[in-house]
Amino acid sequence: MAKFIYGVDIGGTSVKMGFFDQEGQVLEKWEIPTRRENSGEEILPDIARSIQAKNTEKGISIEDILGIGMGVPGPITEDGRVLKCVNLGWGIFSVAEKVRELTGVEKVKVGNDANVAALGEQWRGGGRGFDSIVMVTLGTGVGGGVVLNGKILTGANGAAGEIGHLPVKAGESRVCGCGKKGCLEQYSSATGLMRKARELVENTDKPSMMRDYEQLTGKEIFAAYEAGDALAGEVVEEFAEFLGLGLAQVAQVLDPQAFVIGGGISKNGPVVTDVIKDRYAKNVMFALQGTEFRLAELGNDAGMYGAVKMVLG
Amino acid sequence: MAKFIYGVDIGGTSVKMGFFDQEGQVLEKWEIPTRRENSGEEILPDIARSIQAKNTEKGISIEDILGIGMGVPGPITEDGRVLKCVNLGWGIFSVAEKVRELTGVEKVKVGNDANVAALGEQWRGGGRGFDSIVMVTLGTGVGGGVVLNGKILTGANGAAGEIGHLPVKAGESRVCGCGKKGCLEQYSSATGLMRKARELVENTDKPSMMRDYEQLTGKEIFAAYEAGDALAGEVVEEFAEFLGLGLAQVAQVLDPQAFVIGGGISKNGPVVTDVIKDRYAKNVMFALQGTEFRLAELGNDAGMYGAVKMVLG
Repeated sequence: MAKFIYGVDIGGTSVKMGFFDQEGQVLEKWEIPTRRENSGEEILPDIARSIQAKNTEKGISIEDILGIGMGVPGPITEDGRVLKCVNLGWGIFSVAEKVRELTGVEKVKVGNDANVAALGEQWRGGGRGFDSIVMVTLGTGVGGGVVLNGKILTGANGAAGEIGHLPVKAGESRVCGCGKKGCLEQYSSATGLMRKARELVENTDKPSMMRDYEQLTGKEIFAAYEAGDALAGEVVEEFAEFLGLGLAQVAQVLDPQAFVIGGGISKNGPVVTDVIKDRYAKNVMFALQGTEFRLAELGNDAGMYGAVKMVLG
Repeated sequence: MAKFIYGVDIGGTSVKMGFFDQEGQVLEKWEIPTRRENSGEEILPDIARSIQAKNTEKGISIEDILGIGMGVPGPITEDGRVLKCVNLGWGIFSVAEKVRELTGVEKVKVGNDANVAALGEQWRGGGRGFDSIVMVTLGTGVGGGVVLNGKILTGANGAAGEIGHLPVKAGESRVCGCGKKGCLEQYSSATGLMRKARELVENTDKPSMMRDYEQLTGKEIFAAYEAGDALAGEVVEEFAEFLGLGLAQVAQVLDPQAFVIGGGISKNGPVVTDVIKDRYAKNVMFALQGTEFRLAELGNDAGMYGAVKMVLG
């Protein structure tokens, strides 16, 4: 008899849940709130209850479930232990074992959310057709996930793919959230873009479309850049310069087939990959000039897909 | 009946050959010259003849050979095709297939020499006990090899682990051998050390032990540094600063268990890992502070061991 898979992506405010068939097609998706109170002790029981309710609704039992895959916003060991997850209030324990206990499902796979999203994009999103990709998430910060030969690279400390904290600038005085100075995400995140735009708008008299917007986010900055606004050009230049440099560092180490660019900033479309590609090429060896750049395609569903792929193996 | 393995490491002037048992113990090792004339067309036939002669000497036949492993000084695809090998005069062809034809041995594994040496060190050298390491070879240039879960990471273009060309310095005017500017090997190789030492000796009046040596190589520079020589301190500082930065970039991407430091400069001993570790820690996230640093142990035999390990899988 056909079996089913649950793909679960735990976020800070909501848990995305997907009910998939064993071919990896999504049959249904929904969300439940992430209850962070009391050190997040109800998060996993809530998920287990939601799974049980869905089973009942579908008239299926635990035996019909091939497995449960999960993305968690924190460092995770290969065997599914979470090493503290500040966002959820969690300490150190085995998420995989706990979910096994709560649901009775034997096959439970757990990964870091950025890594799991990278796997989702490689499997069914912008990285389709490639075995080895690096996913770059450009949002409030810069996140990353590495997929090699169709498998997530976790790293010895669960920190592989932490490319937001690549050291890209010497002599920086501002401190990054991680405590270091000159990290990639200080320049190439939405936060970095907006900071640079504000600095230029406030400290110069140069004319710019950026002065006309009520709200100035990555969207307006890229719109102004595409309209030929010189000041927006300076903002995008810094963003692209450091991102091109950071991804060159990644390529000299990993030599992936492709970079998949996701997160809020990627919604500005091909202009984003175009400006990065250009700066990337200046910073890599000849053999790496042909690395492909793709936009992510699955948006917020990437984690759910990656979670299912972990179960399918 | 017990089987045997040949481990072969092709260098620009000689080919190192090892005869191993199936437990991976070396039984005998020797060298033959690398005949580069006529586009290196005799290199593989010479190796095949040497293997046949050894078989005859040992009274064994092709059926007693489990496989042949080989390290080649150039980019190699996963299936054993060499993509031009300037050092040997080779163009593009399948080394694995050619060796199969010449020897009649079915299992032939071929890898890039730096990667194969990394695998050797992980298996039997300084990386013993770790599954995932990055080998850093500090010689005339800076080479690298990545081993993840006991397997070589080749990369989409055979360029994974090319850490000598990590971009580590903005605004450099000198050009690296690769055509870029500001590559790690411009500062953290023996060449970089000697250039910096010469610059300081010639362009300053500061007293230094470095002025007393007839020949000034990495050995003398590190000896002066350990004796407290201030000018040698400046030389080692630049070497270590950029190497610490470059390995921090590597760790933010891969999160390996350990770095294994080899090549001529590593012969100066623990002082080398000590100075690198210190600068590394300043440049990585908290989670990566504990990455181990080890000295390579196999010297020129690393490639031979790694070649054998590729056959054993």
